[in-house]
Amino acid sequence: MSRKPLVFNAFAHVTPNHHSHGFWRHPDGRQQLGYKHLQPWVDLAKTLERGKFDALFLADVAGVYGSFRGGLETSIRTAMQFPSQDPASLVSALGLVTEHLGFAVTSSVLQEPPFQFARKLSTLDHLTEGRVAWNIVTSYLDNTARNFGLEALPDHDERYRWADEYVDVVFKLWEASWEDDARVADPVSGVFADPAKVHKINHHGPRYSVEGPHLVEPSPQRTPVLFQAGGSEAGRAFAARNAELTFVMPRSLAGAAKEVQALRARVKEQGRAADEFKIISSFAPVIGATEEEALRKQAELKEWLSIEALQAFWSASIGVDLSTIDPSRSLHELKNTNYVRGAVRSFIESAPEGVVTFGDLLKETISGRFAGTPEQIADELQRYADLGIDGFNIVPVTTLGWWTDFVDQVVPVLQKRGLMQSQYRDGTLREKLFSKGATLPDSHPARQWRGRLGG
Amino acid sequence: MSRKPLVFNAFAHVTPNHHSHGFWRHPDGRQQLGYKHLQPWVDLAKTLERGKFDALFLADVAGVYGSFRGGLETSIRTAMQFPSQDPASLVSALGLVTEHLGFAVTSSVLQEPPFQFARKLSTLDHLTEGRVAWNIVTSYLDNTARNFGLEALPDHDERYRWADEYVDVVFKLWEASWEDDARVADPVSGVFADPAKVHKINHHGPRYSVEGPHLVEPSPQRTPVLFQAGGSEAGRAFAARNAELTFVMPRSLAGAAKEVQALRARVKEQGRAADEFKIISSFAPVIGATEEEALRKQAELKEWLSIEALQAFWSASIGVDLSTIDPSRSLHELKNTNYVRGAVRSFIESAPEGVVTFGDLLKETISGRFAGTPEQIADELQRYADLGIDGFNIVPVTTLGWWTDFVDQVVPVLQKRGLMQSQYRDGTLREKLFSKGATLPDSHPARQWRGRLGG
Repeated sequence: MSRKPLVFNAFAHVTPNHHSHGFWRHPDGRQQLGYKHLQPWVDLAKTLERGKFDALFLADVAGVYGSFRGGLETSIRTAMQFPSQDPASLVSALGLVTEHLGFAVTSSVLQEPPFQFARKLSTLDHLTEGRVAWNIVTSYLDNTARNFGLEALPDHDERYRWADEYVDVVFKLWEASWEDDARVADPVSGVFADPAKVHKINHHGPRYSVEGPHLVEPSPQRTPVLFQAGGSEAGRAFAARNAELTFVMPRSLAGAAKEVQALRARVKEQGRAADEFKIISSFAPVIGATEEEALRKQAELKEWLSIEALQAFWSASIGVDLSTIDPSRSLHELKNTNYVRGAVRSFIESAPEGVVTFGDLLKETISGRFAGTPEQIADELQRYADLGIDGFNIVPVTTLGWWTDFVDQVVPVLQKRGLMQSQYRDGTLREKLFSKGATLPDSHPARQWRGRLGG
Repeated sequence: MSRKPLVFNAFAHVTPNHHSHGFWRHPDGRQQLGYKHLQPWVDLAKTLERGKFDALFLADVAGVYGSFRGGLETSIRTAMQFPSQDPASLVSALGLVTEHLGFAVTSSVLQEPPFQFARKLSTLDHLTEGRVAWNIVTSYLDNTARNFGLEALPDHDERYRWADEYVDVVFKLWEASWEDDARVADPVSGVFADPAKVHKINHHGPRYSVEGPHLVEPSPQRTPVLFQAGGSEAGRAFAARNAELTFVMPRSLAGAAKEVQALRARVKEQGRAADEFKIISSFAPVIGATEEEALRKQAELKEWLSIEALQAFWSASIGVDLSTIDPSRSLHELKNTNYVRGAVRSFIESAPEGVVTFGDLLKETISGRFAGTPEQIADELQRYADLGIDGFNIVPVTTLGWWTDFVDQVVPVLQKRGLMQSQYRDGTLREKLFSKGATLPDSHPARQWRGRLGG
């Protein structure tokens, strides 16, 4: 009961289906087709705040998954994370109907110039009184790249060099353009802001030239809380340097343990304090009043998953068109063929025990891999926590209504065990998450720019 | 009483001072310093809806006015449209607390890639059930250009060529990427959208390459209502081709008449119907219960205006640094000097009768030029309407609280005379404004792309 509560984010995507691909066809799933309106999100935000969630984590991809059968058709037909709306546009409304809930907005360095993006996030941080986070992504779909003037997606390392410059620009705007006491607002002297304390950033780099100053007064957190999920070497290095929360999607407890170890070592190398960096795991449980009910629901979920949509999802995720592999073929047999190589072979070899066919492996998607009662779910989360995981991105298995089940049935058990907070702490999202200051700690690289801009 | 109601927009800017430069120092003006929080805007939106305003028109400049004394210092010190927050970020919250009010968002073609911008506006149009407009601007500050990677602002004609391509991209995404019946959402067949009816746009132009498809389902209006204010030749031509509402800022009734005539002729040349194009004038009255009170308030307003802030504003607006002209000098004397030439001479010669000094001319700013009782204000608006003006961008003279005076004192008089609507019409913003369809009329150039995208 005395253990520190874990972080709980709700992982959502403004699209008909997030990770339970195809489930929008289920009678309960159809409510998700209302994703494009405001009201379902208002209801969700209120439910999450009732459940004392830390934040709503809004996922995004600014393109269509297109590696399957060489085109976008399958994703369009099956609503596989398509269509998808701009997540940042929801924030001010959801901030208005809540008092404590945070909002993590996913935005790729490809999609918006850093000056405009920094201004928008500072605005949202003001409008929510300091409850905004940025999930930094570098995009992984060719279609996204082609929506923003590129012929193809730059390679991994190049995207992270891009991200390095992008964060430099926004960090300068957020942390250094305005000194703490630049706003005077003295009606007698008529000085609103002291021009000697509002600095141009004069950034000139390979991709960006940005003069500044930042157009927005420092917001409660200055830099929003920084989320990042980097699976590659370059991505992990970027996260260890810049992220305050990193998001991992392990396929097993053993996988989670390995990720935690690798990330902690990297953060230490960067000279950052361990308690300034949290590791969050995805978790998408099927909830039942009894184990039998949970397993029955899990089986039903699997029946409703769309193999085609899963093929499109995994093709883009692995980077190989999986259309040549018949989903009914057994994994055992596939392992003994020559044409299963590289990333596909790794994918097949990662299959958990008991998975027989390739189609079943595709269904071992992020959603619904664990099924149990609230007590069993709490036990499983405890196991992750014991490995050093600091919290969870909870992924809805089925529909928006699933959140009510989680909040009403699972949250009370988690709170009773001290795994989840029973009341919010005061202050900004950063203060709530880290029990420290509203702004970044001085060990963070974004802080290096403070006091170093002359103009 | 039977005349058609005029359009009324509330002109606002998310900044400490919009057009009454320096008024934030007045005891009543200081409430405007709360501009960065959400609550004042929520209150304003509710007040405007109570007053049956058509839309909240959110002005913006994505930079700092810098032509005065060669730098940004004066604008920063005097809060001259600085700082300023991202206007689009307010929309979902304000949409949530209103049912009918529209939201016009200013966004420059320099500041955001068209793919991201189109996605954001479509999202906002969904979240507000069709109440969004876009005020298309091309920027006029060098600092804005330098915040977005340019060395200086491109010239007028070049900016309009840029805008021509930008609107082509967003029109393709909004009007042609999704056919009307592309969404199927049939749980039995599992088809969410028919891939044969969701098209890539494959735009390849001098500035932009955009693949598509649009990531957002067609919103209630598809293309948001299009506002544009173009003062130059290129700007007027662009407005006549693309805008549904154009915004003029005449300095007199005679000036308004000339603008109306010129614009109507251009719209006719474009083959567009006269009733698909509205001309809106700015109007910023000082309101008094008696004429004496109004004049007294007007005099007080002028005392509180900041000459320095006005110098910075007009320097950037005219494009000439006005720091060499002592504000106390008489216009008569200035007209007889050699160094007053070009744009400055035109500015001086445009001075209304009775203005004696250069400083007084600077104070002839957009705000507070007219002072009177609600009846006198209605008379003046009637005069504009008789010249063919279709409506007004009402500019707040002093503070956010000024809107309550306008709604409580002036609106009832306007409604009684049939100049302003007493109840909202149903439907989207476009339906409310034009009493026609929710989407653009077929004569609009954006419609040309429908049915022409194959991919």
